[in-house]
Amino acid sequence: MDAANAFRDGAAYVDGAFVPVGEARISILDTGFSRSDVTYDVVAVWNGAFFRLEDHLERFERSCRTLRLSPPYDRAEIARILVQLVRSSRLRSAYVETICTRGVPPPGSRDPRTFENSFFAYAIPYVWIVPDASTTGTMDAVIARTVQRIPVTSVDPTVKNFHWADLTRGLYEAYDRGATHPILLDADGNVTEGPGYNVFAVSDGTLLTPAAGVLEGITRRTVLELAEADGIPVSVGPFGEDRLRDAVEMFATSTAGGVMPIVTLDGAPIGDGAVGPTTRHLRERYWAAHADTRYLTPVDYGDV
Amino acid sequence: MDAANAFRDGAAYVDGAFVPVGEARISILDTGFSRSDVTYDVVAVWNGAFFRLEDHLERFERSCRTLRLSPPYDRAEIARILVQLVRSSRLRSAYVETICTRGVPPPGSRDPRTFENSFFAYAIPYVWIVPDASTTGTMDAVIARTVQRIPVTSVDPTVKNFHWADLTRGLYEAYDRGATHPILLDADGNVTEGPGYNVFAVSDGTLLTPAAGVLEGITRRTVLELAEADGIPVSVGPFGEDRLRDAVEMFATSTAGGVMPIVTLDGAPIGDGAVGPTTRHLRERYWAAHADTRYLTPVDYGDV
Ligand SMILES: Cc1ncc(COP(=O)(O)O)c(C=O)c1O
Ligand SMILES: Cc1ncc(COP(=O)(O)O)c(C=O)c1O
Repeated sequence: MDAANAFRDGAAYVDGAFVPVGEARISILDTGFSRSDVTYDVVAVWNGAFFRLEDHLERFERSCRTLRLSPPYDRAEIARILVQLVRSSRLRSAYVETICTRGVPPPGSRDPRTFENSFFAYAIPYVWIVPDASTTGTMDAVIARTVQRIPVTSVDPTVKNFHWADLTRGLYEAYDRGATHPILLDADGNVTEGPGYNVFAVSDGTLLTPAAGVLEGITRRTVLELAEADGIPVSVGPFGEDRLRDAVEMFATSTAGGVMPIVTLDGAPIGDGAVGPTTRHLRERYWAAHADTRYLTPVDYGDV
Repeated sequence: MDAANAFRDGAAYVDGAFVPVGEARISILDTGFSRSDVTYDVVAVWNGAFFRLEDHLERFERSCRTLRLSPPYDRAEIARILVQLVRSSRLRSAYVETICTRGVPPPGSRDPRTFENSFFAYAIPYVWIVPDASTTGTMDAVIARTVQRIPVTSVDPTVKNFHWADLTRGLYEAYDRGATHPILLDADGNVTEGPGYNVFAVSDGTLLTPAAGVLEGITRRTVLELAEADGIPVSVGPFGEDRLRDAVEMFATSTAGGVMPIVTLDGAPIGDGAVGPTTRHLRERYWAAHADTRYLTPVDYGDV
């Protein structure tokens, strides 16, 4: 089997070696699994180039620092590993994840300060939260009623984490209610985010998104920058579900799909139920930005 | 290498095969890792017999049901796997864990209802949260100030889970403050639990422990049953840290250590700072119960 075949479904970096993603495994004793003591990041490759690679690596570093995790590689080494993963997978568009775990406890130990931290990474074909999100895909959303977002007083949402039980509960609730995408509120009734995406609304001509209690998504940042560049008024702060019901447009943002229009909320249409002009504009601008060299780190696929 | 050597550090059951625990791995794509979409249980083997095996398996089943996980084995099959793990490890005292994960998404899918759930189990030498907890070991505890327990409105603590970021933050805080064991409060200031243990206090001649917002520990249940049998008054309900400061005794309970005396809180002695009579009594009763055949499932180690 040649390399093209072996890495066709994706490539992973585990224990210092490049392996097919299907063989990428972590010890069940690693507290990254058994305590979810872990942080991660996801960066996209689009048309053969990483999009905002430095911003993702910087967020990853910050997350590690906050959790007092020390990955065994520095930023430049991680970047080289990611490029190599994409090269060997030959993927022109990819979902590229970096992971740092606390590691495996020495036998009998429960003191996480003494564990050797581990680094993992992989590249797989680009993942779409919503099929065809760059062109026609839309979301049907519900406000989760059975679960609230884990509060910042318990888990810091700006440190990208695998504590998804609340988001997954919301996802099951959405399915149970005939929808696909939940939006979670916090204990004060403020809008937070959903499983893998930040949330935006357009109301009174202004673009709204929560300031706190959410991951500071890189896609969210891109959208805020594009809106500012285009003179669209932006309000970043707390708001409740009433502002969503008043909204004429809504969308979600994620590295796994970009700007994703939300066209219904709790079964009722947002605005006239079609993708609105601001959402459409930002979605176009978002994908156009993937040709903007300031954001890009091209991959040299060599003679592959 | 003979079996005695291969499984000396522990045995695991992964993908239908028995392997040395050091080789037990899970795919990094399994959402049990990447979304912490997983439940688990831990049962002890002591002097060659499982302690309260049925109760642990029943809790595990309940946890799976709540999360809508369907492990590929029923209770009797799981029990047989666990016995085989202990047999092959030859461990007379062991920490035996069962795990059910949501599983690996089919490529491109994000709908957890469609994933094939996975089962893992392993047996390793008995783990002590506190060294010598059955005889002389004690805990120095602090009330965590920098973090609150994840609320039940976000994650159900009665479903044993790996969402430990709050507990781990508390652990780091305890170390930073020269202690070893945090106790987390909820948003209302009520006492909850710590990383791997329930919490009890003795105050006004009554044994106190929280009713809600915590895992319903099997060790906690054993202690409550023993206290009842011995006519010790018990109060299971909410209380704040003031009740801990008033307490003349405190202890923690876990399958990984039994009844563990807490002798200081935030640096101040509890009572006179020695292990009190009620704690001492319940610790003795707890370990004596490990000879009570009603609680035991002996392991047939065969001719090994
Ligand atoms: C909880 C959560 N919020 C928001 C996002 C979007 O972040 P980004 O735009 O950086 O992909 C993600 C991405 O996975 C997420 O997991
Ligand atoms: C959060 C938490 N609380 C309490 C306990 C104690 O439960 P048990 O007595 O069943 O071991 C555990 C055990 O791991 C735990 O993780």
